[in-house]
Amino acid sequence: MTAKPSAQKKKEGLLRRHFGADTAEIMKSINASIDIDRRLYNQDIAGSVAHCNMLVSQGLITEDDGLAITRGLEEVRKEIEAGQMEFDPALEDIHMHVEARLTELVGDAGKRLHMARSRNDQVATDFRLWVRDALDGLELAFQNLHKVFIDLAEDHVETVMPGFTHSQPAQPVTFAHYLLAYVEMIGRDRGRLRDARGRLNECPLGSAALAGTSFDIDRELTAAELGFDRPTANSIDSVSDRDFALEALSAAAIAAVHLSRLSEELVLWSSPSFGLVRLADEFSTGSSIMPQKRNPDAAELVRAKSGMIIGSLNALLITVKGLPLAYSKDLQEDKKPTFDSLDTLLLCVEAMTGMMGSLEVDKQRMREMAGAEYSTATDLADWMVREGGLAFRDAYNAAGAVVNLAKDRGCRLEDLPLIDMQTVEACISDSVYEVLSLDESVASRSSQGGTAGARVRQALSSARARYL
Amino acid sequence: MTAKPSAQKKKEGLLRRHFGADTAEIMKSINASIDIDRRLYNQDIAGSVAHCNMLVSQGLITEDDGLAITRGLEEVRKEIEAGQMEFDPALEDIHMHVEARLTELVGDAGKRLHMARSRNDQVATDFRLWVRDALDGLELAFQNLHKVFIDLAEDHVETVMPGFTHSQPAQPVTFAHYLLAYVEMIGRDRGRLRDARGRLNECPLGSAALAGTSFDIDRELTAAELGFDRPTANSIDSVSDRDFALEALSAAAIAAVHLSRLSEELVLWSSPSFGLVRLADEFSTGSSIMPQKRNPDAAELVRAKSGMIIGSLNALLITVKGLPLAYSKDLQEDKKPTFDSLDTLLLCVEAMTGMMGSLEVDKQRMREMAGAEYSTATDLADWMVREGGLAFRDAYNAAGAVVNLAKDRGCRLEDLPLIDMQTVEACISDSVYEVLSLDESVASRSSQGGTAGARVRQALSSARARYL
Amino acid sequence: MTAKPSAQKKKEGLLRRHFGADTAEIMKSINASIDIDRRLYNQDIAGSVAHCNMLVSQGLITEDDGLAITRGLEEVRKEIEAGQMEFDPALEDIHMHVEARLTELVGDAGKRLHMARSRNDQVATDFRLWVRDALDGLELAFQNLHKVFIDLAEDHVETVMPGFTHSQPAQPVTFAHYLLAYVEMIGRDRGRLRDARGRLNECPLGSAALAGTSFDIDRELTAAELGFDRPTANSIDSVSDRDFALEALSAAAIAAVHLSRLSEELVLWSSPSFGLVRLADEFSTGSSIMPQKRNPDAAELVRAKSGMIIGSLNALLITVKGLPLAYSKDLQEDKKPTFDSLDTLLLCVEAMTGMMGSLEVDKQRMREMAGAEYSTATDLADWMVREGGLAFRDAYNAAGAVVNLAKDRGCRLEDLPLIDMQTVEACISDSVYEVLSLDESVASRSSQGGTAGARVRQALSSARARYL
Amino acid sequence: MTAKPSAQKKKEGLLRRHFGADTAEIMKSINASIDIDRRLYNQDIAGSVAHCNMLVSQGLITEDDGLAITRGLEEVRKEIEAGQMEFDPALEDIHMHVEARLTELVGDAGKRLHMARSRNDQVATDFRLWVRDALDGLELAFQNLHKVFIDLAEDHVETVMPGFTHSQPAQPVTFAHYLLAYVEMIGRDRGRLRDARGRLNECPLGSAALAGTSFDIDRELTAAELGFDRPTANSIDSVSDRDFALEALSAAAIAAVHLSRLSEELVLWSSPSFGLVRLADEFSTGSSIMPQKRNPDAAELVRAKSGMIIGSLNALLITVKGLPLAYSKDLQEDKKPTFDSLDTLLLCVEAMTGMMGSLEVDKQRMREMAGAEYSTATDLADWMVREGGLAFRDAYNAAGAVVNLAKDRGCRLEDLPLIDMQTVEACISDSVYEVLSLDESVASRSSQGGTAGARVRQALSSARARYL
Repeated sequence: MTAKPSAQKKKEGLLRRHFGADTAEIMKSINASIDIDRRLYNQDIAGSVAHCNMLVSQGLITEDDGLAITRGLEEVRKEIEAGQMEFDPALEDIHMHVEARLTELVGDAGKRLHMARSRNDQVATDFRLWVRDALDGLELAFQNLHKVFIDLAEDHVETVMPGFTHSQPAQPVTFAHYLLAYVEMIGRDRGRLRDARGRLNECPLGSAALAGTSFDIDRELTAAELGFDRPTANSIDSVSDRDFALEALSAAAIAAVHLSRLSEELVLWSSPSFGLVRLADEFSTGSSIMPQKRNPDAAELVRAKSGMIIGSLNALLITVKGLPLAYSKDLQEDKKPTFDSLDTLLLCVEAMTGMMGSLEVDKQRMREMAGAEYSTATDLADWMVREGGLAFRDAYNAAGAVVNLAKDRGCRLEDLPLIDMQTVEACISDSVYEVLSLDESVASRSSQGGTAGARVRQALSSARARYL
Repeated sequence: MTAKPSAQKKKEGLLRRHFGADTAEIMKSINASIDIDRRLYNQDIAGSVAHCNMLVSQGLITEDDGLAITRGLEEVRKEIEAGQMEFDPALEDIHMHVEARLTELVGDAGKRLHMARSRNDQVATDFRLWVRDALDGLELAFQNLHKVFIDLAEDHVETVMPGFTHSQPAQPVTFAHYLLAYVEMIGRDRGRLRDARGRLNECPLGSAALAGTSFDIDRELTAAELGFDRPTANSIDSVSDRDFALEALSAAAIAAVHLSRLSEELVLWSSPSFGLVRLADEFSTGSSIMPQKRNPDAAELVRAKSGMIIGSLNALLITVKGLPLAYSKDLQEDKKPTFDSLDTLLLCVEAMTGMMGSLEVDKQRMREMAGAEYSTATDLADWMVREGGLAFRDAYNAAGAVVNLAKDRGCRLEDLPLIDMQTVEACISDSVYEVLSLDESVASRSSQGGTAGARVRQALSSARARYL
Repeated sequence: MTAKPSAQKKKEGLLRRHFGADTAEIMKSINASIDIDRRLYNQDIAGSVAHCNMLVSQGLITEDDGLAITRGLEEVRKEIEAGQMEFDPALEDIHMHVEARLTELVGDAGKRLHMARSRNDQVATDFRLWVRDALDGLELAFQNLHKVFIDLAEDHVETVMPGFTHSQPAQPVTFAHYLLAYVEMIGRDRGRLRDARGRLNECPLGSAALAGTSFDIDRELTAAELGFDRPTANSIDSVSDRDFALEALSAAAIAAVHLSRLSEELVLWSSPSFGLVRLADEFSTGSSIMPQKRNPDAAELVRAKSGMIIGSLNALLITVKGLPLAYSKDLQEDKKPTFDSLDTLLLCVEAMTGMMGSLEVDKQRMREMAGAEYSTATDLADWMVREGGLAFRDAYNAAGAVVNLAKDRGCRLEDLPLIDMQTVEACISDSVYEVLSLDESVASRSSQGGTAGARVRQALSSARARYL
Repeated sequence: MTAKPSAQKKKEGLLRRHFGADTAEIMKSINASIDIDRRLYNQDIAGSVAHCNMLVSQGLITEDDGLAITRGLEEVRKEIEAGQMEFDPALEDIHMHVEARLTELVGDAGKRLHMARSRNDQVATDFRLWVRDALDGLELAFQNLHKVFIDLAEDHVETVMPGFTHSQPAQPVTFAHYLLAYVEMIGRDRGRLRDARGRLNECPLGSAALAGTSFDIDRELTAAELGFDRPTANSIDSVSDRDFALEALSAAAIAAVHLSRLSEELVLWSSPSFGLVRLADEFSTGSSIMPQKRNPDAAELVRAKSGMIIGSLNALLITVKGLPLAYSKDLQEDKKPTFDSLDTLLLCVEAMTGMMGSLEVDKQRMREMAGAEYSTATDLADWMVREGGLAFRDAYNAAGAVVNLAKDRGCRLEDLPLIDMQTVEACISDSVYEVLSLDESVASRSSQGGTAGARVRQALSSARARYL
């Protein structure tokens, strides 16, 4: 029985070191990326298959070799998926693992695969494919979230709630209108992610180390096979830049900020002080010591994780900043923050979809809180402009005085007698009470994009058309 | 002679506090944004003019009042531009300064202007207009930079230089090819800035405090007058979100990373150790103690300032993260990082345009360094694949052995006798020397996007068509 | 009448360029730091006076020259403070402005001042002095804030409020106990700022450009005159590193996080939904459209500005990261984030001191909310362990069941009849009701650091001793 | 054979949910922290042992129960270390895993362990212990790095190299002097890490959920058993704040910036353009396509990873910022950035220790480069001040003119004939040549902290005393 060749041995067969001593142990620890980039195995194999097919098509390797390679790669994929691949830091990265195992399986044909390419363009291709897949996954997840929001909004076109400014009730709005604010934000988030996908969808394969190759390759062919729109235009740029990842991480960070804002609201609104909503049991947790607690952990976690997503963007910007072209090893550190950011965003979107899809809304409490705090004082001021002919600033000041009067009396605006209002401003007449009720206030805000029912229904149908 | 009314007094006329004591001094210091947002005066006045014209057109104020207001606003603009406006923290922000001065100038008509709007939609509009102007300025500046790069590249299609990896000469490329890598990056940067402009170009005016307004306004009209594509779709979103600024700052940060990488190269390449380029006298500085120094300060500053641009993006992401809708005062802090980021980027682009437009290139030194370090060893390996029929991995290992032989002899690859090469690999024949010269190596890399002259000329003409 | 010499002219007198063309306009814009570093004038002059006195003491310049220089510097300081200095980008920075004006005033003696130093050690000294002054200012401001917290806590040792977890009432605590949590945080913040001051307090003057000087200077003398503990130990480190600023900015960022958390609570607690506190009128603001609003702007601004303070730390870390030793021009960008961060933190501390010093506390509402939400359920579980001999996990589960029973009945825990409790757990007896009241619950938490009155009084007197 | 109880089942035994439906799958994914916090098992068990011993000592549980618990915990530790623990998201975190397995092993005694504590103080204790261990590990690693630097410096007190400013040779220094600059930086880094350790070393155990506990515990006892200096002073602060982690991550980020600067120099200096040093074979790597390459990957990775370390600090600052007291679930996200940062820093320190300990220095090349670029021009200026009596500014300008003369002649300063120098400045005499040589220049910089041999020897012995 022959001993199994060591990983170090396998590497020597592919990429012999042309200088002395062996790698230090600590060097292996810092240098190896296999624990991170093994996730790229699928993309790496797809890229190699496309490269191999092109080499055959151009007559650069024989059909037999091509067949051996593609079959061998398929075998390697299966082994990895079956958990049979032994990963070893000595083989550094996923590219060497795949190529080494391929060569074990198919012999010399395997050694021909790396012609006309370099790890530099290979990893740039793999990484773009991974980011593209992640963006596609996010597009789907955000569409689901969009659907949950829009469906929930349909149910709440008539649900009056307090619109907040400075975390305080300001003016009554409908819950549907509130939800549609997020529908717009998510719409722009999807737009940014799509733009990022569009810009990244060019294939670096064939750029080789940095200068292109002297072999007669066909970059259009590999680009097409891998679903790219076209090959990249400049080989140095192709192996040097990671702006496609930075753009994806920027879009992710902005989307995460939106989810964090929504989470902040869920935490507040589900607290007894607000009591506007209740997270479903399956998204709530208890305490290890206080048996009565029912905590909005999922929302808090989304809020916290958005901090990590910002941190990942920041980290990658820092790492790339200041590197001279073309490839520097620093770029190996592009994958961790990218995986962290896009994985985490997907998790957050899905958790938010679950939370919003099962949210319990306390309409009664919403209406109560909407009516507190003199939230129709602006309606009073507007009435004095419209009906009393006051300049807005005069009306604003008069309305403020009326509010103070009501506060002194300890009553709501609509319960303040007309005669008292008239002590502040003589023009006020009985018809003012019509605009002071919640429903009238909401119905009156019928400017485009406003909270009035008709406008919200319009907005809903437009959102459905644009986003689902 | 009557005393001039104080700023506090003026404010009371507009926005009377309806609760007790005066503002604390430290509160004025932290609350006032006028030192920052005075830069928005032009956008603020444009927005008010559009709002006023719409109010007249809708019959919400009289033509006379409208005329008084627009003339008054024009007067205010002139006063500000002439440096005659006295800015006072008691009047908090640019909006109150303009409205207060307008009311002084035109009397009661001025008090009618704020109907059907709020500071919340007003500042959202002003700020979008400012960011849009800044993006337009950057588009122009980047186009100029593009032109300088493309023109410089035209002059250097034949200039051979070392292509670097890991800050070391790796393979020969042309300087034009190197420059075109940045042309691609800048092209994507312009794309991102344009996408940001497209997405922000919706008008929030008419969203009022957060819920829309009960006045019969025409948001299409104001949007059109201010050059927006359309009104925003949701009034809560309009006053709550700042993702348009976040997106602009993300695009700015990525562009700054590109400029920082180029700066790093200018610093290195202009150092005597490299000596590849020389910054023009007008972009170099001396030392206060060492009379012989000639420092690349401008490049170092661009590199440093890109750190600030990343910091500004980070700061704004942090500030917005976790705010519940709709408006919170935290959003007042959106302007400083945005001004800092986009101003600084413009300065950096213009400085880089100056540096690159006056760069002195040492072609002789470039060629020398390109030929050092066995930079055509890959050509040797490729030759053995192509001509000798070796598998790439075998050829790679053989080429490494030949390099070691040359190192032992202390000679260049092309000076190593054939007979010595053949001790390593018998298939090597005399024709190998053709691929070992710099010019042959460059010419051979004729894959699409590669460094060969014909490819670079193609790329140049394509770049000229796409970017200028 | 002779024409005034231009700034450019003055500069030539000091620091003649030894290479060709004049500086480009855009180069002046990016290179000049005078708009930022003019704030260092006081530190710069102090440093020059100390340097001059040392030169005289060592016999390196004459007493007459020394006298002329120190008098001249005093004159320059007065001119700057009177607003008479004309700042000009052509003179680049504060050091050249001071030296140029000095030389105008005192002639040749002024030209002797720069011997045995360089701008590199000069600016390192000035900047350390500025940071040290800022840290001293912060120490004072934080001490004031400490006093306000401790005084307020004295008044509220008996004030029962809800202790929150997950933004929900969890267990009753006293307001004093809550305030003391911040007293501890601020105590550690002061400790960090003090540690930063201790580590920075070494004098770089005399390090010259980077290598030290050949003149026979006495660095102990200048260090002592400027209040430093000692000279720095290595001249290259002295001009290269900015870790003293990074450490100050780290301490500032952590302190800002604490202030931001407190601000978040003020915003929430002053909202009508909580209603626990009320910011004084002088720290509240109105709305431009909604006359009834009373917004916690100051707290929101502190929360927002803490984002900027984090951004500044991040920016400076990025800018320094990756610079080779010794001085690079990138280091000129150290001042803006440092000024921004420490100025802003001071403003925030002072604003918070104002807010907390004038805070109105609604004890009634605090007590009400403390009693809601079954906040003594843990007391029930603990009772069953202590009195009933249950294992904690069994007691915890039983208490949860009792809470559910009370919820079903729609009553508070203490209103649930004993007989019903006993259906859940037979060991419960009448004495359980004693631990279910708010006051008993608070009093029972008498472990060290706990919320019981005696413990809080102890903690208060310890805090007073340690922090005031 | 009885079926094994499911993880969900086990959890129910400890922490029964007192509300309806089961946890959603996506909720489990986002909520579970076991994949991250399992690393705390050792700290968690140590904390539980100390808690248990204290409960026994206070008579709160029996000695028998105590014995069962501590033996059971030891068993759990062994199982985990043997890889026999099955981790399951349904059991959420390491605390529940340990407690559930303990209860399986020892029965009812296990259910008594959680009395008088909460997961809130438990995790705060575990996490502090972990950070403390990590800081101790870093102290050791940095001491090793210090030793390598100081030993290397001993060998190079006479090795003249170029001192750089703006990445260009500026003045000659010794390599030992350069290394000592980093010795100072690392010294301050160790100081910061030690300060962080000192401030964190207080024990939160006994703070319970947030308010303390009603059981008669002894917090001094647990604090002492776990090696803490004392218990924390305030129970709310204890479970709410994470500034100890923020401070450790700040110190780590600053240290990482120092390592990144050194890495930048290693990358540059080992490039053929500089050629000053050579990384040992065991810290160099090859290329997958260019057989001649020898890349400084380890240095590049340290440089890149420092970006991640900054990103982790930033992420944690963001996550904590704005959270109201006391515990929010957001705080669960404190561990990932802390583990990432401190693990990565340790790896970087060890890799740097390996690189510096095996560095090959090219003294010849260092001396050559030190003599280029007129690096003794400052010596010439200083000579004119000292010997010629010129004011420094006049001498500086004269020296610049002499440099230009030498440049025109294409010769070095020391090769320029006296008569030519005298055309610039008549006071120059023959003795000037003594200060123009490298060795004289270095020897002359004998001010404290300067590069002269005697000073460097002093500095070395002081460093050895302070740091080893």
